[in-house]
Amino acid sequence: MDQILRINMGADGGPSVRTEPLGDYAGAGGRGLTSAIVSKEVPPLCHPLGEDNKLVISPGLLSGSTAAMSGRLSVGCKSPLTGGIKEANAGGQPSQMLGRLGYAAIVLEGQPKEKTLYKIVINKDKVDIQEDNSLCMLGNYDTVDKMKSEYGDKIACISIGPAGEMKMAAASIACTDMELRPTRHAGRGGVGAVMGSKGVKVIVIDDDGMKMRQPQDPEAFKAANKAWVAGLKKHALTGEALPAYGTNVLTNVINEAGAYPTNNFQKGQFEGASNISGETQAELEDARGGKGASTHGCHRGCIIRCSGTFYDKNGKYVSKQPEYETVWSHGGNCGIDDLDAIAQIDRLDDDYGLDTIEIGAAIGVAMEAGLAEFGDAQAAINMVKEIGKGTPLGRTLGNGAAVTGKTYGIERVPVVKGQAMPAYDPRTVQGIGVTYATTTMGADHTAGYSVTANILDVGGTVDALKPEGQVELARNLQIATAAVDATGMCLFVAFAVLDQADTFQALIDMINAFYGLSLTADDVTELGKSILKNEREFNQAAGFTAKDDRLPEYFKKEALPPHNITFGVPDEELDQVFNW
Amino acid sequence: MDQILRINMGADGGPSVRTEPLGDYAGAGGRGLTSAIVSKEVPPLCHPLGEDNKLVISPGLLSGSTAAMSGRLSVGCKSPLTGGIKEANAGGQPSQMLGRLGYAAIVLEGQPKEKTLYKIVINKDKVDIQEDNSLCMLGNYDTVDKMKSEYGDKIACISIGPAGEMKMAAASIACTDMELRPTRHAGRGGVGAVMGSKGVKVIVIDDDGMKMRQPQDPEAFKAANKAWVAGLKKHALTGEALPAYGTNVLTNVINEAGAYPTNNFQKGQFEGASNISGETQAELEDARGGKGASTHGCHRGCIIRCSGTFYDKNGKYVSKQPEYETVWSHGGNCGIDDLDAIAQIDRLDDDYGLDTIEIGAAIGVAMEAGLAEFGDAQAAINMVKEIGKGTPLGRTLGNGAAVTGKTYGIERVPVVKGQAMPAYDPRTVQGIGVTYATTTMGADHTAGYSVTANILDVGGTVDALKPEGQVELARNLQIATAAVDATGMCLFVAFAVLDQADTFQALIDMINAFYGLSLTADDVTELGKSILKNEREFNQAAGFTAKDDRLPEYFKKEALPPHNITFGVPDEELDQVFNW
Repeated sequence: MDQILRINMGADGGPSVRTEPLGDYAGAGGRGLTSAIVSKEVPPLCHPLGEDNKLVISPGLLSGSTAAMSGRLSVGCKSPLTGGIKEANAGGQPSQMLGRLGYAAIVLEGQPKEKTLYKIVINKDKVDIQEDNSLCMLGNYDTVDKMKSEYGDKIACISIGPAGEMKMAAASIACTDMELRPTRHAGRGGVGAVMGSKGVKVIVIDDDGMKMRQPQDPEAFKAANKAWVAGLKKHALTGEALPAYGTNVLTNVINEAGAYPTNNFQKGQFEGASNISGETQAELEDARGGKGASTHGCHRGCIIRCSGTFYDKNGKYVSKQPEYETVWSHGGNCGIDDLDAIAQIDRLDDDYGLDTIEIGAAIGVAMEAGLAEFGDAQAAINMVKEIGKGTPLGRTLGNGAAVTGKTYGIERVPVVKGQAMPAYDPRTVQGIGVTYATTTMGADHTAGYSVTANILDVGGTVDALKPEGQVELARNLQIATAAVDATGMCLFVAFAVLDQADTFQALIDMINAFYGLSLTADDVTELGKSILKNEREFNQAAGFTAKDDRLPEYFKKEALPPHNITFGVPDEELDQVFNW
Repeated sequence: MDQILRINMGADGGPSVRTEPLGDYAGAGGRGLTSAIVSKEVPPLCHPLGEDNKLVISPGLLSGSTAAMSGRLSVGCKSPLTGGIKEANAGGQPSQMLGRLGYAAIVLEGQPKEKTLYKIVINKDKVDIQEDNSLCMLGNYDTVDKMKSEYGDKIACISIGPAGEMKMAAASIACTDMELRPTRHAGRGGVGAVMGSKGVKVIVIDDDGMKMRQPQDPEAFKAANKAWVAGLKKHALTGEALPAYGTNVLTNVINEAGAYPTNNFQKGQFEGASNISGETQAELEDARGGKGASTHGCHRGCIIRCSGTFYDKNGKYVSKQPEYETVWSHGGNCGIDDLDAIAQIDRLDDDYGLDTIEIGAAIGVAMEAGLAEFGDAQAAINMVKEIGKGTPLGRTLGNGAAVTGKTYGIERVPVVKGQAMPAYDPRTVQGIGVTYATTTMGADHTAGYSVTANILDVGGTVDALKPEGQVELARNLQIATAAVDATGMCLFVAFAVLDQADTFQALIDMINAFYGLSLTADDVTELGKSILKNEREFNQAAGFTAKDDRLPEYFKKEALPPHNITFGVPDEELDQVFNW
C-alpha cells in the first residue's frame, strides 16, 4: 500500500492513469492522507465542482490487514456543501480490497470536457477506464447489479447514484457491503457531487490474486490484534449494546436525555421515540428476517457487528438496518415514528446516493417552511423521490438544509458551515455543540463525539447541560478522532479505547508491529493535531474565520424543551478549541 | 429632517412607534446614515431574516430640498443575499417626501410573532400602523392602487411584492414615481425580504401640509443649485445622451467594447445588441407613446430625465422604460433580443418586487444548467412567473444566481459575495472587476463605477483591458460614491462631477449653504471613507475576509471573446483597495 493512483479525467484524449510512490505523503493513510493531499494540492478558492478540485479515496493505515475493524475508507475533497475541506468515511468492503491492491490512495483529478460517464475497473493487473453512458442516472443498486453481471461477485464497488450525477451538495458515495449491496456511504459534505463532477459513476475493485497485507512483525501484530479484539468484546457498548441493537440503541438514551432534536430542533423529546428505538427495530428485524437479522457486520473483519437487515412485513429485503442518525433524521426530526417508512427512505437515500442526515434535516426545514406537516411520512417519501427525479423541489432538498432554508426564507436552519447537524441537540449536549461549531467539517458528530462523556459516561463524565469543560472535551476528542480516522478503524472502537488504557495500547501496538515503528500515545496525539492543522489551514485559506466556528444564533436564544436551556459556551471559549 | 422614526414590529401588543433625535447620527444621511445605524445596531452574525436585523430607510442629506437630483432614498440592512451590510437605493418620490416630513430615517425593528401583514401610514400628524392582510401576495401595482384608493393620489409608497413576502433574497423594495407607479426599486441584496420579514407590506407617505426643506443660507443655496443644474446640462452624458436614450444608451457602447456579458458571461458581444439598444428603444417608445415618451424623470426635481415609458404596440402602458441593466440581464445575458419581452419581464419584476439584475443573472445560470435555451424569451417570461407564484423553481430563481447555481451544480456563476454581477464583464472592464470584487456590497457597478474611465473617458482614461491603474480608480470611485450616496443625489451626477471641477464645487456649495457648513473636497473624501469603514467593519465582524474580495476563479481562467483576455488584477492588489 505504497502507491498513489492518479487518474486525470480531464486529460487530452480521454482519462489518463499514472501511479506514483507516496513520496512526501509516506506514513499517511485514511483521513491523514486525504486531508494532506487536499490541503497541499487543491486551490482553496477553487469551485468544488470544477476541474481544480480533487477527489481522494484512501484506505486507512491498517486497512487490508487482518486487524479487526480496519475497514473504513476515507474520501476527501473540497466540499461543495461547506466550501471547506472534507473527509467523509464509510465502511464496506472497498477499503480492505484497495489496501490489498497496494493503493494508499486513488486521486481523481480534472474533469471530462464532454458530459460522459465513466467506470473505472481496478484489479491486480491494470486500471481500466471505460466510457459507459448506459449507467446514466442509474441508482446505486442497479449500478452495482450491472457491475456484478459484468465482473462477477467477488468485486467491491464505489459508486454514485443520480444525486451525485446531478452534483447535489448532499450526494454521497456508496461502498458495497459483504452482500455486494451499496449500503455503506461516505455520506457527508457532497463528496458524491465531486465524484459526479469528475464524470466517474463507479469504481469497481477486484482484489482477486492479492493477499492480506503483511505486518513487519507478524507475531507482535497477532498478539496486539488479539488484545484489541478482547478489549472491544469486553466493553459494554462495543461488546453488547451495539451488536444487540445497532447504533439505534441511542434513540431511547438520547431521547430520555432530552437531547433528541424533534420537529426540526424545536424540542428535545419525541413522543414517538419508542416506536423507532433500537430495541423496537431489532425485535422487528429478528421477527421478520429471522433471529440474527439485527446483528451483522458492514465489512469482513468487523467484530462489533452493529448493522443488520431490514425486511418488510412480507420478509422482502428493504435496506440495511437504518442507522441511528437516519432513524432520527427521517424519523423524530420530521415527527415520523414509522420504522417501515424510515427504512423505505433509507433505501431511497442509498439508491439515489444521498446523505441521510443532510436530507432528513432538509426535509425538516421544508416542513417548517410549510411544505408538509411534521409527521407526514408519505410526504417525506415523496420529497425524497423528487430528489431522485431532480425536480425543482428535489434539487433544492438535494442540496441540503442550508440551501433549503435559504430558498424558503427560514431562520431555524440547524447547520454549521452549511452542513446539517446530526441527532444531538447542542443545547442539551453542549460538548457536541462545541464540536459542531468548531470542527473543520461543518456540523459533524463523528469529528469529536462528546456524547461519550456528556451522556454515555465513556471516557469520563462532563455535565451535558453546562458549558464548563466542553471545550477541552471536544478538543481532545477531535484530536483523537482525526488520528483514528487515519488508521482505517471504525470510530466505534473509540468507546473501548477511551475507557480501557490497554485497548488503546493494543491499537498502538498493532500499528507499531505492522509498520515496524515505535509510536507512543503522544505520537498518536501529534498525528491527530497535524491532521487538524492541515484542515484548518485549508479552511482559513478558503476564507473561513472564527465567525464560521459558531452555531446559528437561535441556539443561543431559543431555549429547548424539556430542559429549557440554550447553548452556553461563550464564543471566546470556542476560539480556544484549536489552541493546544 | 432631524428625527429618527423607530417602529418596533415585534413589540408586545403590536407594533410600537417612537421618534428620537438623530443624536450620535447627526450629520449623516442616505447611505451614510443607513450604514452607520446597521453597523452600530445590528449584530453582525444575526440571521438577516430574524428579529435582530433592522431595515433602515433614509433620505439623503439634500432630499426634500429644491436641490436638483436629490431624490434618492437609501435602504440599509444586513443582506439576506450576501450576509454582509447592504445599502440599496432608489429614485421616485418617497425620499423627498420623507425629507419634508422631517424624518432622517425610518428604522423597522423586531418582527411580529404572528404571520400578519401591516401597512404604515405616515403624515404630518401621525404614524399609523394597521394590520391589513387583504394586501397579502398582491403585486406592487395592485398594492399601490389600493393605497391610492384609500389615501388619494398625493401620496408616495414604499412597498414589497410577493417576492418580499416570500422573503426571497432577490426581493426589492419599490418606490413610486411621479405617476404613482411602483417602478423605482431599491433592488439589490434582498432588502425586500427584510421588509417582508418585518411584516410590513407598504409604507404610505403623505407630505400634505409640509414645505420644502429650507437651507440655512437661501441665497447661496440658490446660486449653487443654479450652477449645479448648469453643470449637469453642460455635460454630454447628463445633458444629452442620458436624456435622449436613457441608461440603455450603454448597450451599443459596452457591446462594441466587447464587455457586454452574453449568455451568462460566456462571451463579450451579443449579436442581437442593436435590436435592444437605447437608440432602438427610444425610437420604439416615441413611436408608440408619442414624442417625448422616451424622456422622463423618475422624481420631481430631476433634470437628467433618463427614464421613459414603454408601451405595447397598441399603445398600452407596459412598464417604465427598462434600464440598461435590465435590458442586459433579461436581454443579452439570456441571449434575448426582444424589447417587448424584456419590457414585459421588467413589469413582472417590478410587480413581484424583484431585482432585475439578480433575476436576469439567475435565469442565465438556469439556462446554462439546461432549463431553457439561451434566447428563449417565452421560457424566461415563464420562469419569472414561477417566481411570482413561488413554485419550487420560482423559489430557487427568486433567491438569486448563487442559489440557482448551487441548486443546479453550475460552476459558471457570476457572483461576488453571493450577489450577481451587473452588465459589464470584469475581464474587459477590469476596473469594474476591482469594484465587483472589493466593494462591501457584493458585485455592484454603482459602488464604484469604473466604467467611467475604463470605457467612457469620464474622469480620465484607464485602459479597460489591463490591470494597471484599476485599483486606484476603483478605490477613488468607491470613496466618492459612498459620499454621493449620502447626499440623496442620483449617482448620474458623477459624470459631471468627475469631469467638471466647478460642478463638484457647486455640489459642495449646496451642502454648505443648506447646513451652514464649510466643507471642502477633502471633507467629502473623508465622509466617503468613513462610510466605507463602517461597512467594512460590519462585514469583517460578519466573517468576511480578503477571500471574499475575489471574483470567481473562472474569470481568471476562461478568456472572454472577442478580446480573449482574463481578469488580470492580482489578489495582492485587490487587497490594497481599502489601504488608503
